[in-house]
Amino acid sequence: MNAAKFLVISGTHGNEINPIWAVKKFQNLFLADCKNCNLEFILGNPKAYEKKLRYIDVDLNRSFNIKKSEHNKYFYEIERSKFLVNQYGLKGINPFQVAIDLHTTTSNMGTSIVLYGRREKDFCLAGLLQSKFGLPIYLHEKDNNQVGFLVEAWPCGLVIEIGPVAQNHYDAQIVERFLIILRFLNNLIIDFKKGIIKLPQEISVFVHQKSIDYPRDDNLNISALIHPSRTNQDWKSIEAGQPLFLDTNGKTIDYEGKEKLFPVFIGEAAYREKRIAMSFTKRETIKCSKKWIDNFLYF
Amino acid sequence: MNAAKFLVISGTHGNEINPIWAVKKFQNLFLADCKNCNLEFILGNPKAYEKKLRYIDVDLNRSFNIKKSEHNKYFYEIERSKFLVNQYGLKGINPFQVAIDLHTTTSNMGTSIVLYGRREKDFCLAGLLQSKFGLPIYLHEKDNNQVGFLVEAWPCGLVIEIGPVAQNHYDAQIVERFLIILRFLNNLIIDFKKGIIKLPQEISVFVHQKSIDYPRDDNLNISALIHPSRTNQDWKSIEAGQPLFLDTNGKTIDYEGKEKLFPVFIGEAAYREKRIAMSFTKRETIKCSKKWIDNFLYF
Repeated sequence: MNAAKFLVISGTHGNEINPIWAVKKFQNLFLADCKNCNLEFILGNPKAYEKKLRYIDVDLNRSFNIKKSEHNKYFYEIERSKFLVNQYGLKGINPFQVAIDLHTTTSNMGTSIVLYGRREKDFCLAGLLQSKFGLPIYLHEKDNNQVGFLVEAWPCGLVIEIGPVAQNHYDAQIVERFLIILRFLNNLIIDFKKGIIKLPQEISVFVHQKSIDYPRDDNLNISALIHPSRTNQDWKSIEAGQPLFLDTNGKTIDYEGKEKLFPVFIGEAAYREKRIAMSFTKRETIKCSKKWIDNFLYF
Repeated sequence: MNAAKFLVISGTHGNEINPIWAVKKFQNLFLADCKNCNLEFILGNPKAYEKKLRYIDVDLNRSFNIKKSEHNKYFYEIERSKFLVNQYGLKGINPFQVAIDLHTTTSNMGTSIVLYGRREKDFCLAGLLQSKFGLPIYLHEKDNNQVGFLVEAWPCGLVIEIGPVAQNHYDAQIVERFLIILRFLNNLIIDFKKGIIKLPQEISVFVHQKSIDYPRDDNLNISALIHPSRTNQDWKSIEAGQPLFLDTNGKTIDYEGKEKLFPVFIGEAAYREKRIAMSFTKRETIKCSKKWIDNFLYF
């Protein structure tokens, strides 16, 4: 039995440059010691990276969706998504079973994990990362406006999302955080081969509920900013009556939801064009199963 | 005697959007109470703001230089600089004596003041701000590579520089900091009219010495990032032997200067294209003179 091969993608968004630097550093520092390791690397969107842009035509990380790609076949990112799947997908020329997609955010999320849907193998991998580092897990599901994420095109995959860091801005502290994750994943594969992996009993996830836009005026211009008491408070609960936005007249707009929720991606710069000021999540505990480990290497 | 008229410029860099928001808020909240105040507002680079760019053709805040403008007359920003001076300069159609240029930086500078050259009126204004808020003052001089700053085109002027905040990213906490400065300046003019202004005995300034680039490889690509122990350490001293950069092989490049200096604009995103990784400053104390106050209103 061969161990699952891990494909690590950096630069899926061309202006998120710290993961690209981290991969270069990882390759320089550790790959020489890792002749049989199964961690391989690819630059997600080389054209956008060259131009210092998030994307050329459309967001590559919303382009892994067969129906959509049939309708938009002249977009660079749609072509790129097809290339990546044809080359590195489970049935590709050089097949990989696991995709690890490295991203940065301008929000104060720290190091976090993003999952798309409830897949056992994703839970297994995320659970191991959470158990080791205590990382929060954002489970993105039930959102018809946001589909076609890269890792969904592989049978197992997750996003490592680290912030806050500006787009196109190098930050060696962010780079070091990616290196810690890459070293862990590298060793994880070796430990899987040795059969010495142990899952925690349960994992804690923040399950996506909905995203909200900024308040807007009649011309659809943003009319209020995220309230200063809410800025940088990702993963921290919000309850009815707490300040959410602040307009140019000094008027506070409160959160009016009935449930206690946990906002994430608060003020993420790239989401303004998607009309998202923040996303709300709800905590949930998921029991781990020993068979997740037993099954992990079988695709 | 009329009080000096203050022109407040926001959006000199079109992707520094928090000062623009702060001005809108200031106008909504305070201008109704300030019928006779002399604070007026202009958007520096409306075209770049609309396109979410720092500038269209060239950096507007390096375009206020007559010689240069004669050679580059078809650049949008050169035309814009001429318009602003012809309209609002000391000899303009609607003349102002003082220019306050609001900027943000991606560096961890906090709220700071930038001066260009040793002008008494600038020292007077900066001294009053420092005395009130304890703000650091960066005195930019003796740098032939960086000329043509906006405020140099007025007989008195300074930059308010607040960070860290990403380009094109709204942050209500940054907005609030600009509002504090705007309210102070608004009241300052009233206090000047009343003759109740008092200067401190001396002011402390960080005097520009030189800027340094990132280490680069043979293809002129950046080959080392600012060392994680130096990131975000603006205004904090650096001495020989302390880490400065870190390359992808994990090799640290130390600072080798003989003098103890104070780095600023560490890792500023917009300066990468100018080949500046950070600038070094040296502390200096400047004695204040009572005549700065007496002369302040005479232009």
